[in-house]
Amino acid sequence: MLTSQGNAFSDAEQRAVYRAIFERRDMRHFCKGTVPDDQLQRLLRAAHHAPSVGFMQPWRFIRVRSSLIRQQLHRLIEQERLLTAQAIADQGAGRDDEFMKLKVQGVLDAAEVLVVVLPPGREQHIFGRRTLPEMDVASSACAIQNMWLAARAEGLGLGWVSLFDPRQLAQLLEMPEGSYPLAILCVGPVEAFYDQPMLQAEKWASRAELADMVFEDVWGQAGLNQDQP
Amino acid sequence: MLTSQGNAFSDAEQRAVYRAIFERRDMRHFCKGTVPDDQLQRLLRAAHHAPSVGFMQPWRFIRVRSSLIRQQLHRLIEQERLLTAQAIADQGAGRDDEFMKLKVQGVLDAAEVLVVVLPPGREQHIFGRRTLPEMDVASSACAIQNMWLAARAEGLGLGWVSLFDPRQLAQLLEMPEGSYPLAILCVGPVEAFYDQPMLQAEKWASRAELADMVFEDVWGQAGLNQDQP
Repeated sequence: MLTSQGNAFSDAEQRAVYRAIFERRDMRHFCKGTVPDDQLQRLLRAAHHAPSVGFMQPWRFIRVRSSLIRQQLHRLIEQERLLTAQAIADQGAGRDDEFMKLKVQGVLDAAEVLVVVLPPGREQHIFGRRTLPEMDVASSACAIQNMWLAARAEGLGLGWVSLFDPRQLAQLLEMPEGSYPLAILCVGPVEAFYDQPMLQAEKWASRAELADMVFEDVWGQAGLNQDQP
Repeated sequence: MLTSQGNAFSDAEQRAVYRAIFERRDMRHFCKGTVPDDQLQRLLRAAHHAPSVGFMQPWRFIRVRSSLIRQQLHRLIEQERLLTAQAIADQGAGRDDEFMKLKVQGVLDAAEVLVVVLPPGREQHIFGRRTLPEMDVASSACAIQNMWLAARAEGLGLGWVSLFDPRQLAQLLEMPEGSYPLAILCVGPVEAFYDQPMLQAEKWASRAELADMVFEDVWGQAGLNQDQP
């Protein structure tokens, strides 16, 4: 029987890949410092080697260097943070106070800010998207995850901010009709990586049991994990 | 000035992470063999450690073991393959012949088939999603990318199939109202990994220049990559 042995990475390499996966964090605290151009280039190249539906490569990256635009980004985020806090308060879950504590300073503090944008013309791409048009979003998310893991390996923090109005952001960065901004990424040196997800440390939520995430054959039927430690 | 040095992985570890990123492929050809339960568990755990908006963990995995259900999945995919081929022919790009050659055998041949599903009740989660509701799709895509990279490191192929009607798939696997299937993943041993993306080898598309993907400050303004080799 053929096995996967021949194609597997060495044990040390496998450990490194899992280390990146388990130690990656959504960072919100950044310290001073810079990201050298060649390092930023490596992160972008990692993103650009993500899978994409029909090889459409539906990602563009706007590197924000202007401090004026950064401040405008911060304003957009702060505005949406307040609207989200109000919406959460309206839900009646009693969580608005907790939520308000979470900072959105990253976009001002991080060494680099990258905005990830889905380009216009995506409706032309129907291979793998005729019934699942959101596969463009999925592909770009894979690109961001690649960059996130590469950044972690290089010792750089990355935070994905989705607290913004996409129409206002599109207008601010002069995006063409039909494009769509998916992420504001804060990237740069950090003092230290959180030892657990910040939202878990803040008691916002905790990681579910893996066993509860896996079913067998049909929805709701317990899968392999129920017997595992 | 603080730098990222203290938090960085060793050079060898960094190379392993980049190796996984660059050698990962969307596989469609699988050989016989199995995925031991503990290995499958590691892949699922890698997925479950993905980032998620508001820590909502919007992923469920249905492991399809029934060969009857596999055949039904194959039928759904084959049906959508034909509809997509027709839609591409209607676009008049003259690509329908090429497209028809691409196989959808993976779902029958792969050692394991996993269906990734967004669970119901996602509308409750508004943190990071009030204005970008598709962040649930993005989070689940990050989970799949984690699994993809872990599988590559372990020497297992993974293919993401999005050629299906999500309503029909939901019905087949008895998913509750409000859930949404995002992926059929084929996972298992492969003879060898493609040395380039299959769609590029098939001349369907080729990788864009990274320089064309990166702008500075506003859409369309050349970024750092223009000067780089």
